[in-house]
Amino acid sequence: MTTNLPDYHAQGYKSIIATLEGSILTIVINRAKYRNTFGGTLDKDLADVFQLCDRDDRVRVVILTAEHTAPAYCSGADISNGWNILWLEDSEKEGEHALNISIVIAHRDSGGQISMAIMNCRKITIAAINGHAAGVGMTALQLPFDFRFVWAGARLSFPFVRRGIVPEGHSRANSLLLAGATVSPDSKFISDLYHDIIPTREAVYPVARAFAEELATNTSQVAIAYTKSLLQHPGDSIEENHLLDSRAIKLLGSSADGNEGIQSFKERRLPKFTGTLSKDSSPWFPWFHHQYQWRRIDVKHHKAKL
Amino acid sequence: MTTNLPDYHAQGYKSIIATLEGSILTIVINRAKYRNTFGGTLDKDLADVFQLCDRDDRVRVVILTAEHTAPAYCSGADISNGWNILWLEDSEKEGEHALNISIVIAHRDSGGQISMAIMNCRKITIAAINGHAAGVGMTALQLPFDFRFVWAGARLSFPFVRRGIVPEGHSRANSLLLAGATVSPDSKFISDLYHDIIPTREAVYPVARAFAEELATNTSQVAIAYTKSLLQHPGDSIEENHLLDSRAIKLLGSSADGNEGIQSFKERRLPKFTGTLSKDSSPWFPWFHHQYQWRRIDVKHHKAKL
Amino acid sequence: MTTNLPDYHAQGYKSIIATLEGSILTIVINRAKYRNTFGGTLDKDLADVFQLCDRDDRVRVVILTAEHTAPAYCSGADISNGWNILWLEDSEKEGEHALNISIVIAHRDSGGQISMAIMNCRKITIAAINGHAAGVGMTALQLPFDFRFVWAGARLSFPFVRRGIVPEGHSRANSLLLAGATVSPDSKFISDLYHDIIPTREAVYPVARAFAEELATNTSQVAIAYTKSLLQHPGDSIEENHLLDSRAIKLLGSSADGNEGIQSFKERRLPKFTGTLSKDSSPWFPWFHHQYQWRRIDVKHHKAKL
Repeated sequence: MTTNLPDYHAQGYKSIIATLEGSILTIVINRAKYRNTFGGTLDKDLADVFQLCDRDDRVRVVILTAEHTAPAYCSGADISNGWNILWLEDSEKEGEHALNISIVIAHRDSGGQISMAIMNCRKITIAAINGHAAGVGMTALQLPFDFRFVWAGARLSFPFVRRGIVPEGHSRANSLLLAGATVSPDSKFISDLYHDIIPTREAVYPVARAFAEELATNTSQVAIAYTKSLLQHPGDSIEENHLLDSRAIKLLGSSADGNEGIQSFKERRLPKFTGTLSKDSSPWFPWFHHQYQWRRIDVKHHKAKL
Repeated sequence: MTTNLPDYHAQGYKSIIATLEGSILTIVINRAKYRNTFGGTLDKDLADVFQLCDRDDRVRVVILTAEHTAPAYCSGADISNGWNILWLEDSEKEGEHALNISIVIAHRDSGGQISMAIMNCRKITIAAINGHAAGVGMTALQLPFDFRFVWAGARLSFPFVRRGIVPEGHSRANSLLLAGATVSPDSKFISDLYHDIIPTREAVYPVARAFAEELATNTSQVAIAYTKSLLQHPGDSIEENHLLDSRAIKLLGSSADGNEGIQSFKERRLPKFTGTLSKDSSPWFPWFHHQYQWRRIDVKHHKAKL
Repeated sequence: MTTNLPDYHAQGYKSIIATLEGSILTIVINRAKYRNTFGGTLDKDLADVFQLCDRDDRVRVVILTAEHTAPAYCSGADISNGWNILWLEDSEKEGEHALNISIVIAHRDSGGQISMAIMNCRKITIAAINGHAAGVGMTALQLPFDFRFVWAGARLSFPFVRRGIVPEGHSRANSLLLAGATVSPDSKFISDLYHDIIPTREAVYPVARAFAEELATNTSQVAIAYTKSLLQHPGDSIEENHLLDSRAIKLLGSSADGNEGIQSFKERRLPKFTGTLSKDSSPWFPWFHHQYQWRRIDVKHHKAKL
């Protein structure tokens, strides 16, 4: 546990600038002189800030964006020294060609680590893509977000198979990934990914910000966290979903936020939700529960049996 | 087992009117004076009628609709007494804050129970949404159906996170659920959900009815039930699907309906399928089989280990 | 293992013509006098040729198509002798009505066997659908492919439930399968399936061929195989995906193709990938690994426990 009121400007981030205004945390990628490539401390900074704001009750919405004057939102991995930017220093000692699958899986891709940090953040997450994007800038820096706003003029490319490598992350966009395509946001292969497509670069963040403010004001932090979890970790069957849903509905229906939802509706006014994750999510939140573990695999253990 | 020829008007339903005409069962939500909220006996009536018609060989298609003059198709949970309409009386005695996950999951949400009854019904199911819909009227009363016909003017809303509660059911529409959105049927976030969007309220049911009659006449009751099951309960891999598909194809290919399919095709005439579930689905139907259980969890057991 | 340089014209195929030109293998369905029905040796020929080219390093892209003057791309199962064309001769001895589920699942549908052969082929697969398609011509001969190009005038039909049988394969197109629909490629229910819709029959193959040549020239055979596998066999959780992705990224990032991807990018030239599956995919490729088996079920074992 960290303190509940972190100072985002005092975290020593070198590749991002994170600013909390009201309940909205804005993270700006700060590597314009390197074309906003995925390099330097960007991986560590992002992994850290998403873990930090997950536990900060003040934060209701997180927006990741770039300067709209930067060369790109994120132009992909910094490959000036080859692909090895993509694996962290602590990588394994095990031999590359060991036959025992239970030990050879040891490297932890940094794009994947950031994807997990974003997906595990229980707040609303928004990507405001106000520039071109390629590679990991299309996958880890877009796919894990709840909402994506994009500049209509952005060039979006998935060059992996044209660079002899595989994409991290998981996407059903076989066409895009196998063809190594570059498309516009209005392409039929990708348009559904975006909540809105914005004509100018400079308007992307303001539109995303206005959307964020409305959600921050009128939704319950606890209800958002449970809803995200139900969507991200569905059961294996309708019956299993029913058990989880049922518990969550009763728990929240009996909570202060659930009551405020009823009262504000009856009084025809906007709600004022005061529930917070640190106050109201315990002791029942199955995706956090030590006894439960929700099929979560310890990805840090170098001898993890997959 | 109930009798195979139930009288739908003699079941004592108070919140619905169920009428069998030929092979089509029409269920009309009958709570216009309560804005067709999800309340009263609606949950119990719907759970009962979908289980009943599942076993009634006369029924080939089930349509759920409302009076097109009602205030709404379904305006969501009746929250005049708070959220507790959503949990049934038999809810658990276990402490809310027990730490042992294996016993705390005990409440059974009524929206989820109805979703399961509809999904487990092996007949073709159609929702004819001829009015506005909100909350559980968007989830349990729409998502489990095979086909949905909707009035173009319907306001469709997912207010859950704005009421401090979570949605039951499972949907991939993260945008709709996390934003607590209200949209029109032609919204890009929802239009794919609908088989057809109909300009006027009064035409929604007739269009759905004509579609139902064509299907009831020209499809095999047994083939529909197997196809629904293969779609709803896919295996974990292409190999597992192949095993299930193979068995179903051979079983039906050797059946009376399979032969009639061949004969009618060769004779260039419409088929007359006589197979019924009570006659032809046994003894092999893996999703029903006691030895098999198809990962079905006993949701009634209060100590179910999830 | 077969020889690595098979002669496709010497395999004795009776229902297809397979021709290797450069790195593109074109397979033409050769049953025009039977309306290109799924019959004769078509199932065995297709299963064989997809297994053969999977192991042939020369092949980078496989295209399945028909003569554009044929009556159809594939008009469905040849049912002149009933449905039994769909099950192979080696089908089981076990009684049809045995209650023990572990032994009754024994038949192996031939459409499903071909679907698996196509999905398990690690090369880029393209279906160039230059004529009408029905039944198994819509499922096994289209759904398992990575890319599909279709003639705008094609009639596409899913008649299964209208013939008293179930579809093999797995598709989320409930509407199409349960309604037994016939649609055009621009139908909202199916258009997303197609990479491109081509106005004339004769242009379908040339367009698919040009697409194939570009991909064959500029993508890495090994990167394609890993990417396909990651997409087809995702883990059960984001953590499991992360472990697989990480290993693949490091492995390919350190490979000759990974280095060529970097070098060509830096030198602003097109890449020349020399990596091949027989040379570079071993010893680590979890979906092939005997110790791993990737939840693969032995579908040939007649007593397989499902």
